[in-house]
Amino acid sequence: MAMANRVGLVNLLGLVETENFRERKCNYVLRCEKREVRGVRNVNRVNGRESAVLEAEKAKFLSNGLDWPGSTSTMLASKLGRFVEKQLVYRQTFVIRSYEVGPDKTASMETLMNLLQETALNHVMSSGLAGDGFGATQEMSIRKLIWVVTRINIQVDRYSAWGDVVEIDTWVDASGKNGMRRDWIIRDYHTQQILTRATSTWVVMNRETRRLSKLPEQVREEIRPYYLKRFAFSTDDTEKINKLNDDTAKNIRSGLVPRWSDMDMNQHVNNVKYIGWIFESVPMKVLEDYTLAGMTLEYRRECLLSHVLDSLTTMEEEPSIPSELESTHLLRMQADKAEIIRARAYWRSKGLNT
Amino acid sequence: MAMANRVGLVNLLGLVETENFRERKCNYVLRCEKREVRGVRNVNRVNGRESAVLEAEKAKFLSNGLDWPGSTSTMLASKLGRFVEKQLVYRQTFVIRSYEVGPDKTASMETLMNLLQETALNHVMSSGLAGDGFGATQEMSIRKLIWVVTRINIQVDRYSAWGDVVEIDTWVDASGKNGMRRDWIIRDYHTQQILTRATSTWVVMNRETRRLSKLPEQVREEIRPYYLKRFAFSTDDTEKINKLNDDTAKNIRSGLVPRWSDMDMNQHVNNVKYIGWIFESVPMKVLEDYTLAGMTLEYRRECLLSHVLDSLTTMEEEPSIPSELESTHLLRMQADKAEIIRARAYWRSKGLNT
Repeated sequence: MAMANRVGLVNLLGLVETENFRERKCNYVLRCEKREVRGVRNVNRVNGRESAVLEAEKAKFLSNGLDWPGSTSTMLASKLGRFVEKQLVYRQTFVIRSYEVGPDKTASMETLMNLLQETALNHVMSSGLAGDGFGATQEMSIRKLIWVVTRINIQVDRYSAWGDVVEIDTWVDASGKNGMRRDWIIRDYHTQQILTRATSTWVVMNRETRRLSKLPEQVREEIRPYYLKRFAFSTDDTEKINKLNDDTAKNIRSGLVPRWSDMDMNQHVNNVKYIGWIFESVPMKVLEDYTLAGMTLEYRRECLLSHVLDSLTTMEEEPSIPSELESTHLLRMQADKAEIIRARAYWRSKGLNT
Repeated sequence: MAMANRVGLVNLLGLVETENFRERKCNYVLRCEKREVRGVRNVNRVNGRESAVLEAEKAKFLSNGLDWPGSTSTMLASKLGRFVEKQLVYRQTFVIRSYEVGPDKTASMETLMNLLQETALNHVMSSGLAGDGFGATQEMSIRKLIWVVTRINIQVDRYSAWGDVVEIDTWVDASGKNGMRRDWIIRDYHTQQILTRATSTWVVMNRETRRLSKLPEQVREEIRPYYLKRFAFSTDDTEKINKLNDDTAKNIRSGLVPRWSDMDMNQHVNNVKYIGWIFESVPMKVLEDYTLAGMTLEYRRECLLSHVLDSLTTMEEEPSIPSELESTHLLRMQADKAEIIRARAYWRSKGLNT
């Protein structure tokens, strides 16, 4: 197993701050939903009116100057998404914004990864399991354990345009003995056509020793109720990603320097930014004439503001299918050539797009 | 008047594509709203039920596989925002997402500028005035005129945190004889406290000759109904921004290269990205210890993917108020030192934040 990194953690499951009342509110909403869905109806709705139990909780919220989630304001709902399919799938809708589309006038890969991250974070927040930060559960927090992502695979059938509405489903499952898998499906909200599938693998790490850890039984017990045996992809992408080096890379772009604005709330490089750096060594002709159809990212090491990076790319054309390309990538430290991320990407000719 | 640029245009008012049905839907929603608000009640709601006129339009939408705006789906509403105050103010709410916050764990200046852009674009789309792209009105499109932004001034009293809900108001007014002013107010949705004020100035340019133009009377007639004599700021920020050069700049960062991912849908550098480059020459200690309280940007020239830039900064400390700093900035072409953007920024010590 590759050395996992803190970066992925922060971005794809992480940073659920304990500071705020908001979280407690989310948890409360979830508990209500659970009671309703699971039939433990100590919170009842009779003719659309809440019971006394609910009214008391509502008064508590309002006295704190907060909008009651069930009020005419739909803000909280639109913020949090909702649980569907017996609480096992978390669903959130997003409108693609003008600044989230790239030169192709469609949502960029960075945008999709950002939306996956946001959905995962809200899933954790809404599950009521969140511990003392970083998306860890309560039992993990006790043990100083955090989640780290080791691999993400995303396949995009169609990119949405500005103003399109997408619906993202996410769920988790066990992955091996000590891991967790998180999958996502992005659909067009109106047509319900599947646009994107993604899967990721997570392990736990001690946040002080930075060593990987077994998944404690108590943590497994916490998250097991959320496991759903469903796969975004019908087949596993387990193929090893070759490690590029100065000899095997066809394009090398050196001296990439993280900008202040690339830092996320944990002062690490936001892992979505890696995608931009990977693209820095992709030939312009590929960026212009091809659409990124999918990619697999293997996270090896975190990146800080002071690091200087090299981006290495090798385009591996498939002569039999000239309309499709495959590429291999490496981001590494410039100083000691330590790996940060390996990636493989698939491209299809823009002529093929509908 | 400085040479205006296409960049600002694309990002702050622009690129309303004609291709789609979505726009027509938006226009329809607006027309309905207008009729209701202005009392021309040929579309009536009686006890919450639409009249036959509305029902017919609704059937037309549904037959095209589109969600009816008034249905239980609130997606369209959340996407478009709405007109308030007799159609003169456009209001949209946003939830700050996890990936929109920076190292300070609050929404970055880039995020705020993105949200202002999105609100402005949706305002134009929803107004029903949109011509053949770039946020131009129909009368502008006939004359090959486009909007370009020349100046933006933004002042941030408080940055929102991840998950916070903000409400953005925007409106336009005349600016001099040939310009338009667009203002914004960002409020905290729950407390209604004003968090941010911003104002911007726009002129029209011929998109082929790239020369500034007078505002044709027909265009003025189109937009005049939307003018609102209200100012986000009580005083004008008309003070000239000094032009830095190699002698007057205290910090220079050379060789900044736009990334592919910095390009917007018009293959120009997204103007919000300029902010990141401006920060590249700001001392790290300022970025770490101070909050950006406000900035004024003067747009001079567009930036393409092939350009290499210099970022120049001079921090001008105010000895009498050590908790506050002022800075002057210039982004210019590395090759010929042509100006792209001048900026002035104000910073307050983080120790002063609540």
